[in-house]
Amino acid sequence: MAHLNRRAAQRLMQAEGLDALVLFSPEAFAHATGAAPGVATMWRREGAVAVLVPADPGVPETAVVSDLFAAGFRRGSHIADVRESAIWVESMTLAEPDLDGPAAAQFEPLWSGAERPAGNARPETFDARACYRHLRDALAEKGLARGRIGIELAAVSARGYPVLAEELAPAQLVDATTIARTLRAVKSPGEITLLRDAVQVAEVGIAAVRDAVTVGVRRSDLAAVWSETVAAEGAGRPMTGAWEYISVGPDPWGGDAVAAAGDLVKVDVGCLMQGYTSDSGRTFVVGPPRRLQSDMHAALMAGFHAGAALLHPGVALAEVHRATQSAIRAQGLSGYSRGHFGHGLGTGPGSEEWPFISAQAETRIESGMVLAFECPIYVTGVGGMIVEDQVEITDDGPVFMNRLPRDLVSC
Amino acid sequence: MAHLNRRAAQRLMQAEGLDALVLFSPEAFAHATGAAPGVATMWRREGAVAVLVPADPGVPETAVVSDLFAAGFRRGSHIADVRESAIWVESMTLAEPDLDGPAAAQFEPLWSGAERPAGNARPETFDARACYRHLRDALAEKGLARGRIGIELAAVSARGYPVLAEELAPAQLVDATTIARTLRAVKSPGEITLLRDAVQVAEVGIAAVRDAVTVGVRRSDLAAVWSETVAAEGAGRPMTGAWEYISVGPDPWGGDAVAAAGDLVKVDVGCLMQGYTSDSGRTFVVGPPRRLQSDMHAALMAGFHAGAALLHPGVALAEVHRATQSAIRAQGLSGYSRGHFGHGLGTGPGSEEWPFISAQAETRIESGMVLAFECPIYVTGVGGMIVEDQVEITDDGPVFMNRLPRDLVSC
Repeated sequence: MAHLNRRAAQRLMQAEGLDALVLFSPEAFAHATGAAPGVATMWRREGAVAVLVPADPGVPETAVVSDLFAAGFRRGSHIADVRESAIWVESMTLAEPDLDGPAAAQFEPLWSGAERPAGNARPETFDARACYRHLRDALAEKGLARGRIGIELAAVSARGYPVLAEELAPAQLVDATTIARTLRAVKSPGEITLLRDAVQVAEVGIAAVRDAVTVGVRRSDLAAVWSETVAAEGAGRPMTGAWEYISVGPDPWGGDAVAAAGDLVKVDVGCLMQGYTSDSGRTFVVGPPRRLQSDMHAALMAGFHAGAALLHPGVALAEVHRATQSAIRAQGLSGYSRGHFGHGLGTGPGSEEWPFISAQAETRIESGMVLAFECPIYVTGVGGMIVEDQVEITDDGPVFMNRLPRDLVSC
Repeated sequence: MAHLNRRAAQRLMQAEGLDALVLFSPEAFAHATGAAPGVATMWRREGAVAVLVPADPGVPETAVVSDLFAAGFRRGSHIADVRESAIWVESMTLAEPDLDGPAAAQFEPLWSGAERPAGNARPETFDARACYRHLRDALAEKGLARGRIGIELAAVSARGYPVLAEELAPAQLVDATTIARTLRAVKSPGEITLLRDAVQVAEVGIAAVRDAVTVGVRRSDLAAVWSETVAAEGAGRPMTGAWEYISVGPDPWGGDAVAAAGDLVKVDVGCLMQGYTSDSGRTFVVGPPRRLQSDMHAALMAGFHAGAALLHPGVALAEVHRATQSAIRAQGLSGYSRGHFGHGLGTGPGSEEWPFISAQAETRIESGMVLAFECPIYVTGVGGMIVEDQVEITDDGPVFMNRLPRDLVSC
């Protein structure tokens, strides 16, 4: 199921005078088409995938995919206008193979199949030019050959851009990265379910790590508890991965430390459902917290409460940043400085996506956004500390998806 | 230890009339500096890292890193000229914390430390402009402000390029992606050791998978055997990861298939040592191979032998492609078409790096290259099949790093 809202896309395009949007990143492609972009997009090379979204919601989208993933794409997407470009992988189908017959006779009819690349010649990796020509043809067929086209330029390299501009001429190309990001920032109900399921599994993992914290436990032991717990809890769900930044002891960036009495254990982790990652964090202490640790955690919690109170539709993210940082500073960490206190979530690389809760972010919070809201501090000599929740923004305000207490829990 | 050869860089820059090279990708940065690029480069966002390599080997390099990774960088690199730009993460050091004392008094002196960002203000994520200004200053100090500067443009987005061009003006910027790739294609002795260690561990894993193949085994069982075996074998080595594309049965792209008599099991896997990934593959069959499978494998092996014979310094990669594909076609797969028969190896995303053994590749093989040389075929209805070795190119020809037999082994 595609998550892109064509009406919202129309509004954003009209505001910028755009006739269509062309998306290239694997995450934007998956969002707009509802289909997995395919493993071959892991290199993020040009020409792997593209989707053309006209401003007019009545005009259907066009997708460009590789011949290898075309069949899977057609099963996974509502988009009917699919154009293929050949990639480097030799692949074919023998519907009724005779395992005891010779290969040559059985393969012979396949080499001339309609789905074979022209001349049976394949590109070195991806054929970006072929991809862009499909887009040019589609623009022409939709009457947009000379249109003003918004391009996700953050997903095109400066090296490859001239080829794109040449092939799409005479269309006028403008950067539409912000539109592409804005469309992904408000989640569909399906995306919200995936993110909620992901954080639910993650919290079972965090609780298991908490229960395993004791004097003498290694960071690697806790990492194994995390991995095994979420793998078991995620069985039967569409879980596609998990990650952890667990630290033990006074070095927040350290290696395989062994927990000693008084050590901090920072657990910043996520699970992926159909590529959508959760992101939340809790901090534990081996034995009773010491004064310095309690003070630090109290300052972070003051920031958390101040920022959380502003997570309502219409509030600029910069306001959330200001309130959060001011509260932490007022609570004794007078020079504390953080670039952002959280971010959007999705299927992109890493766990952090636009928008960011930063001092620079004029973006206003909208109902339907799902944000990771976090107050971390990393002090070499003391350890790492984080409070991070996943929040669904509703018309009535924030709905926190986490259930575990945010306290500095003593283990 | 840095792997970039300054003399080779000088030759390549002189041939293009360049005064210096600026590298931005995490893999090029690690290669040129010898230091890990840091986890914050996982987003591949602009401004995370940069390194300036003057054409004159007598002029020292300049590295630009985040404040968070500066200390680690200084420990890991020979480069002494290190310039910092602040990132979003609040981090500091309390050398002698008093755990029972209040936080405010202990942190107060840190907020005015020399290493703090100006005004204690941090950017939303990375400050690309600050990174580029450090580069501009370094160019000016080296007398290259108006120089002809080669930029790794494949690692700069079309969206971010105008800022780079503005900040580096009046320098003349030209694309040097190919130079950056060429420098990484010939490996240092240290890189060759890492790649050899990686494939050695991987082969122990492949052998364990082979020994576990039997009627009724699941793909996920074999994947677990792989993961557990290489984790155990890699213990005590600088192993940083492992990946697998194992397929079982007639669908080469299928899910968790259960092996039946006569099924193909394709094992295309790799281990990472300090980020350097191995890549090799073998194919097994559950019980005796059938005629169709033997024919397919014989064709791939014909290609493998034809191509392997050409893996000598001075041979164009396109010649290897031609010989490999011709031999496979001559052996009964008359329309077989593959974009490349292998690739370079390194620390980049995915397991495949430039150069590619493709019909388009004019690049000539050089002594010191390490290539993955592969002959795969994927037939839905029959299964996946691969023969892939890792090869070190020496003056005397190819030295294959794999030891396992390349046969279609019956399990």
